[in-house]
Amino acid sequence: MHAAEIAEPYPIVLATTSALEAARLLAHEQRPGLVVIGADGSPVAVLPGSQVVRFLVPDYVQDDPALARVLGELPTEQIVQRLAQLSVAALLPSPAPELPVLRPDDSVVELAAVMARLRSPLAVVMDGRTIVGVVTAARLLRVVLGDAS
Amino acid sequence: MHAAEIAEPYPIVLATTSALEAARLLAHEQRPGLVVIGADGSPVAVLPGSQVVRFLVPDYVQDDPALARVLGELPTEQIVQRLAQLSVAALLPSPAPELPVLRPDDSVVELAAVMARLRSPLAVVMDGRTIVGVVTAARLLRVVLGDAS
Repeated sequence: MHAAEIAEPYPIVLATTSALEAARLLAHEQRPGLVVIGADGSPVAVLPGSQVVRFLVPDYVQDDPALARVLGELPTEQIVQRLAQLSVAALLPSPAPELPVLRPDDSVVELAAVMARLRSPLAVVMDGRTIVGVVTAARLLRVVLGDAS
Repeated sequence: MHAAEIAEPYPIVLATTSALEAARLLAHEQRPGLVVIGADGSPVAVLPGSQVVRFLVPDYVQDDPALARVLGELPTEQIVQRLAQLSVAALLPSPAPELPVLRPDDSVVELAAVMARLRSPLAVVMDGRTIVGVVTAARLLRVVLGDAS
């Protein structure tokens, strides 16, 4: 079986997409992360959910649990406004987690080896400059274990 | 809103659970990772999906894409046998990713701050020695964005 047969449709965002839209996608699609592409359509990075969560709290609170304890509830309106003003690019950690990119005819072994090496929750399958789909770790395990699972 | 109200039921495995069972859970539940607990019921770590994928390919292939290319298809039976002989503890990277543990009355801010700091796709909410549930990044985003999403 090849990467093209395993890849599934997946939510993809532009680096210029608003952070609010990305947060909503993550919230509703229940995915481990989003695939981020550049203006030319080429994959740039994985945006993990934990990285978006990071922007729910002010910088000065992130490293100080004591401050988080006294801050009380998060003002939703302020968060929505902040996320609406940021782009996905601004949410990416630096350096951004490398996104495994594979070819349609790559094997399951190649998919597994690259995802494992980059510790990525997902890989993108590209046919030239076109995204064929995405393979998550869960999907790959389902394919490999097959009837045995 | 407090951690106890946000936490959801979540698949949990013992460190002594077979790696095959953990792989099947990840495959079918479509989760970013599993919560691993010790014999005394206390949370030990997060087992990310990518870490299980790692065990689908022999060690010597993981760092060499050229080898992955020539290896051909994965023999499912061998993989199932290998995973059945390993424990979840053997799949954990060393050091294992730290699992954020929160209390039932912790706030959304505390949840977000800890998940962001540990870059964890999920957090466990414990009431003393009892697991109340798990909060994923997606769940937290849904709670915070609320009606705004």
